[in-house]
Amino acid sequence: MDFMKPETVLDLANIRQALVRMEDTIVFDLIERSQFYSSPSVYEKNKFNIPNFDGTFLDWALQQMEIAHSQIRRYEAPDEIPFFPDIILPPILPPINYPKILANYSDEINVNAEIMEFYVKEIVPQVSCKVGDQTENLGSVSTCDIETLQAISRRIHFGKFVAEAKYQSDKPGYIKLILNKDVKGIEDSITNSAVEQKILERLVTKGESYGTDPSLKYSQKPQSKVDPKVIAKIYKDWIIPLTKKVEIDYLLRRLEDEEPELVEKYRV
Amino acid sequence: MDFMKPETVLDLANIRQALVRMEDTIVFDLIERSQFYSSPSVYEKNKFNIPNFDGTFLDWALQQMEIAHSQIRRYEAPDEIPFFPDIILPPILPPINYPKILANYSDEINVNAEIMEFYVKEIVPQVSCKVGDQTENLGSVSTCDIETLQAISRRIHFGKFVAEAKYQSDKPGYIKLILNKDVKGIEDSITNSAVEQKILERLVTKGESYGTDPSLKYSQKPQSKVDPKVIAKIYKDWIIPLTKKVEIDYLLRRLEDEEPELVEKYRV
Repeated sequence: MDFMKPETVLDLANIRQALVRMEDTIVFDLIERSQFYSSPSVYEKNKFNIPNFDGTFLDWALQQMEIAHSQIRRYEAPDEIPFFPDIILPPILPPINYPKILANYSDEINVNAEIMEFYVKEIVPQVSCKVGDQTENLGSVSTCDIETLQAISRRIHFGKFVAEAKYQSDKPGYIKLILNKDVKGIEDSITNSAVEQKILERLVTKGESYGTDPSLKYSQKPQSKVDPKVIAKIYKDWIIPLTKKVEIDYLLRRLEDEEPELVEKYRV
Repeated sequence: MDFMKPETVLDLANIRQALVRMEDTIVFDLIERSQFYSSPSVYEKNKFNIPNFDGTFLDWALQQMEIAHSQIRRYEAPDEIPFFPDIILPPILPPINYPKILANYSDEINVNAEIMEFYVKEIVPQVSCKVGDQTENLGSVSTCDIETLQAISRRIHFGKFVAEAKYQSDKPGYIKLILNKDVKGIEDSITNSAVEQKILERLVTKGESYGTDPSLKYSQKPQSKVDPKVIAKIYKDWIIPLTKKVEIDYLLRRLEDEEPELVEKYRV
């Protein structure tokens, strides 16, 4: 995705290609996480005595990572949004003047708190290799968690580009839907069940291919490191619905950043 | 690998299994890196004006990461060693009392400087998708680089466990070789060309399986994201030889941590 060229970013074919590529990263990350125990200590508030800190160990580790990544400009990119916007630092690299692609308020559309919640409650128990803590691996666990959370967050918030592209392709239609606060109409306009079905099928084949040592394929009955059906289910139950929520939240506010004359034209 | 149980760690079958699993991580990491340009600015000394810092942008980013990871106990683990041992911080988690597995001096066997050099000079040009900088991705590039470097470093320094296991399995033989400073004899004793050949073949199949979108397998002629032969070559030319160097360096010093009486028994 070349954010210096807005016209390529808002091309739905390019967005789809980027989303397909992100599946690989998410599948890789889930496979890496599956090496470790569920590790409840990582997700329990104030389980460890971290000075001047109120939260889980994962929160703390993720904050350290976001502080470091903010300094290397991660959160300047239009497709990255922090879990802890209040603690990040200014970049040490020269700023990038990204052209405007999304609406002004787009950084305010941030569902990372919900992502953290379903990740800890739904994903970790389903992909970890065993229930319980393995004390010496808590750091490794949090490192895998952070990578997975960041990959899922990027995927879900990419919905903003989908939403903007759809809006640009049919301003009159969307302005009417938004003026009518027609959430159901907006949802229908952004839903493509055939595409969703294809995503789920592709995830199963990716889970099998990427999660199975290919050199063992014919010699034994090797299992995929993460059940491919679990990967598809995570998408079906959480990633796809939250992406839609991002798209709808983004579209519902879209007129805040539209020319008033144009909006008036469609007001009845 | 359960470092709380030294006897399982020094079982060569377990070590081999761990090394095979690490291949997956390294292949995933190389695939992720292949999304980005070669990005020479990341590796050029003092290319950016980072206050109070002398080094490349990657050095700086890696140091931030090592500072964070040291606090979550990464470098307490016997299979992790920092690139910048002088800047790391004490852990915020309670310490783990790992049982002794390796010789006392094992942390002094550190080839990370050589890993950094061949990574930048040999690996980056071969796996990146295009030559040149893409300014807005320098942070993402460094993040991929750090993950790949850490995975390769862990793989190479795992040679210490191989060396220790071999030493334990034949103390008389190794004590004689070490007393004679017989580097060639030590190298021969740790080399298994058949196993090495199998690793290279397995890497090609992994590169194909993990690097190709399986849903496209029959519809088009999809290319693997990283040339699988390049992955095998990286192992052949750099990872395997450096692992052997670690094993030899470790063994050459092994008598520093052996009972003097036993050593004397084999001195001619």
